[in-house]
Parts: sequence; structure tokens; C-alpha cells
Amino acid sequence: MKTNLLSSKSVKQIEIIKVKESNSFPYTDDISVEEPLEIRVSYSAEGKKESKNISVTMRTPGNDAELAAGFLFTEGIISNREQIKEIYSPQEECSRNSENIVIVELTEGIVPKLMKADRNFYTTSSCGVCGKGSIESIRTVSTFHNHTKENTEVSLETLYRLSEKLQSFQNNFSATGGIHASGIFDLVEGNLLALREDVGRHNALDKLIGHALSAGMLPLHDTILVLSGRASFELIQKAAMAGISIVAAIGAPSSLAIDLAKEFDITLLGFLRDNRFNIYHSGSHFKIENLL
Amino acid sequence: MKTNLLSSKSVKQIEIIKVKESNSFPYTDDISVEEPLEIRVSYSAEGKKESKNISVTMRTPGNDAELAAGFLFTEGIISNREQIKEIYSPQEECSRNSENIVIVELTEGIVPKLMKADRNFYTTSSCGVCGKGSIESIRTVSTFHNHTKENTEVSLETLYRLSEKLQSFQNNFSATGGIHASGIFDLVEGNLLALREDVGRHNALDKLIGHALSAGMLPLHDTILVLSGRASFELIQKAAMAGISIVAAIGAPSSLAIDLAKEFDITLLGFLRDNRFNIYHSGSHFKIENLL
Repeated sequence: MKTNLLSSKSVKQIEIIKVKESNSFPYTDDISVEEPLEIRVSYSAEGKKESKNISVTMRTPGNDAELAAGFLFTEGIISNREQIKEIYSPQEECSRNSENIVIVELTEGIVPKLMKADRNFYTTSSCGVCGKGSIESIRTVSTFHNHTKENTEVSLETLYRLSEKLQSFQNNFSATGGIHASGIFDLVEGNLLALREDVGRHNALDKLIGHALSAGMLPLHDTILVLSGRASFELIQKAAMAGISIVAAIGAPSSLAIDLAKEFDITLLGFLRDNRFNIYHSGSHFKIENLL
Repeated sequence: MKTNLLSSKSVKQIEIIKVKESNSFPYTDDISVEEPLEIRVSYSAEGKKESKNISVTMRTPGNDAELAAGFLFTEGIISNREQIKEIYSPQEECSRNSENIVIVELTEGIVPKLMKADRNFYTTSSCGVCGKGSIESIRTVSTFHNHTKENTEVSLETLYRLSEKLQSFQNNFSATGGIHASGIFDLVEGNLLALREDVGRHNALDKLIGHALSAGMLPLHDTILVLSGRASFELIQKAAMAGISIVAAIGAPSSLAIDLAKEFDITLLGFLRDNRFNIYHSGSHFKIENLL
């Protein structure tokens, strides 16, 4: 998967006033950059070159190729890395803002599954939208979800260290305090395998999954996905697409996130911090060592 | 503004396992409900009745009429409450999931400004997307932003109490720990005027602004908007649409949120907690009492 992208800063410094008690002083602060990213897909259909705008998302610049690849994969528009020929910024157009556009060129003969892109929002003209409909429609596009490994065993110690590890790795990456992170860790030692950050929680996870896709790491069966904040439906859906079977969130899960985790037999832990957590669903092949 | 909506629960109880140190025990937990909501607009054009699906958002049920009204207003699709005749759930269709659909019927003669709905995502075929473009396009639809009041003065004490107040009001509303809140407070005493919650931060603010719209409270010039989390571009954009001139976030702002606040002369405070905060932009008519 060849990439050729313009780069843009993910953190910028600005002058602010810090206020503490009744004192104020000027300060140079690190701020997470938020800029729109337009994702386009370019492909050939019936001998004709086509280009489609797929999405515009507000993201933190950096790892844009991974974000685009991950988004296309978790939305079911592509299903493996071989379908991507190249990812690049537009060259021939006027150069202003080209760093906010990513073109994903598909391999000869591959046509994107664009009708899948609205599967989040399952609707029928007679019955409207429902969470159940959303869950069913994910089942039809997910490739990996039935392949959970038998007898996955994780120690309490490993779990308890995850939130701290995510936090400390985040501090290394950015000092802004204003950004979401998604990290994958191995099951045995709880070592960090990869971490991505973004102002948008869904983007952080798309970047992470895009990285795993590019690196040939999918499906991510033998890993724990750690989320820096809450676990929404959308995040569990993306995890399911990547074959992740254990998700631990530092924050709370939503009702639909729990429903989806149960449906896909994904172990879902929440409020993982200070040597505590809640188990919202315990996958059928999942065991915690030394738990009384 | 007549409303006639089906209601649905915003919190649900589920059985979980709580783990603390090496002990585990069963527990009945409160979970924030997340379900899709489809917003439709119904209106008459050239003597013909039209109905358009505007958006599907993952939201926490409750205050759905406010969410729909607020969304239409902050997206520039409608501009005042008189344009809304009635907000209701579909009746004649099959009843399954009707609670996840809201129909906003516009007053006779009002046509929704649907071309505005993609203004977030300013694009041109030659130059692509950019944050600047997004900011400019908001300027063209916002009604209230140039009307900031002169000599707005807020005391440090009032500011310091806001985060605590938001937190304590949130605890009264929900015990799930997994939900975003937006609250408006008066400038003098810092009293809560209204608060709305949702699993989606943008929905919480749309509900709040929809409430203000219905109650005839717009523009919200003499209030402080307090956000339970980070301040993204999207939230400042919605605040600008409602004429809010002071925003205080418990979390960090993004770069584009700061740019937008400067452009619209909205005072933007971040990390408001533990008797501290940062000033990212101080509006030209904004003063803090007793600040050294």
C-alpha cells in the first residue's frame, strides 16, 4: 500500500492566559489541531475512471492515510489492504488545503461497496430506524466477528495496568490534554502494540484499525482494545469490523454498545481505572485469572 | 409550538459484574440509553406536501422535540420558532420504533433551507475543504453573532462555581457517569437556567438550544454556556448560531474551536475546574472582576 501524503501539524502552540485562583499570567499552550479531512475514493468502473467523495470528518492531522484506510474498512467499503493501490493527496489541483484531502485509489478491478456506507442508519420506509436494525445490518458486512479464540485468559494485573499505560503513552504523544486515544495491547503482558489519537474518538479508532490493516495485523483477535473515553455504539461497531474480541473503556458504555457487544460476543469492560472495572459482557471464551 | 411525541427511556438498568481489586460481585447498574433518531421535515412546496429525511443521529432518548428543533436551528434549516407548526412521532405507519422518528412540520408557506445543511463541510471542486472555509460559511447563516452586549462582567467566584454546579446538576439527572451535558447559566449569580444531557455532546447542545428556541429565549447573549467535556469546532458553531457569547468548557478546546471563537468574538474558557481555567479568547466586551 503506497502512500504519498502532504503532512500537517497535529499540535500547535498558541498564546493564552492561564488563571489560577485570582492570578493570571500569559502562557504558551499546546493545542490539538482540528481540521476537516475529505476522503475520496478513486476507481475504474466499466473502463471509466470514477472518483467519489465518501466523507468529510473533523480530525486531528496526522496518520491521514491510516484514517482513510481504516474508515473505508470499518464502513465495509473495502475489505482488505490488497484492494488499495495507493493513498495520496491531490497533486494537479490548486495546492491550497490539499493536506485536507486524501484520495484512496483502489486496485484495478475493485469497485467500492458504497451502498454499505449508510448501514449505520438502517431504515425502512415502513418502520423507521432502530438500534436492532443497526446491529443486524452490521452482521451482514462484518468479516471477522465469528472467529474468537477459545480460552482467552487475561490476568487482573494486566487489566489494571492498561488504563495507566494508555495514559502514560498519551502523555508522550501529546501534551494538550484534549484528545481521545485508542490503543491495542497484547493479552499476555499487556504490552502496547499500537496507539492512535484524535480529537474525534471514532477517528482515533479508524487510524488504529487503518494501521492494523496496512500492517497486515487484521483480524485483531488476540488483543485488547483500550478506549480513553466512553464506549459508544459506533466504537464497538468498528471494533467488531476489525475482529477485536475484548474492549476495555476508561469511561462508560452506552446501552446500544452493550447490546452490540453481546450480539458479537465481544467482552466489554467499562470504567477501567483505580483497580476497578465493570463487566458489561463477558465473552464466552474469555476468562480473568485470579478473580474471586 | 405543539409537540406530540412518543416517549422512551433515557436510562436503563442492566445486570453487570463489578470488579474491585480481586473481588467481583453482581450489581444492577444504570446505563445511558443510546438509540438512533431520525429527524424528518414536512412542509408544503408549490401546493404539494413534501417530507425529507434530514439526519439520523445516535442520541439518548428524551427531549427529542427539542433535539429536532435545535438541530434544525443550529444547522440553519429554520431560523425561528414561528416556522415550526408541530413536532410529532409518525402515527399512521407501523408503530415499531416510531419513538425513534421525529417529524417537524413547518408552518404553512415555510420552506426549509436545506442547501445549508452541508455548510459544515465547505468544499470547492478546485480547492477542497478547509477550516477557514467552514468558518466563512457559518458567518453567512448565523443570525445573532454580531450582537454581543457591551461591558459584560463576570466574577471569578461565579466562574469557579460553574463546573461544580454542572456536575451536581448532572448527578441529579443521571447516575450513569456516561453522558455529556450542556448547561446555560446567568452571568450575575451563575444560576442554572437550563441543562440537557446526551451520549452525544452535539445532541446535548442541540437539545439545550432547541429548548431555548421553544421557550423564546434566543438569542442567549447574557448567559454562559458550560460544556461538560471538550470544546470542538461543532459546539462553538452551535453556540454561535444561538448568539452565545461566553463558552466555558471543563475540557480542552480544539484549534478550530479557538479560531471560530476569535472570528465570532466569543469568549472561550477551557479546563474550568479546581479554581483554574485558561482563557483562549477574551471577547472584546468581556471582563472578569477581581482578576490580578
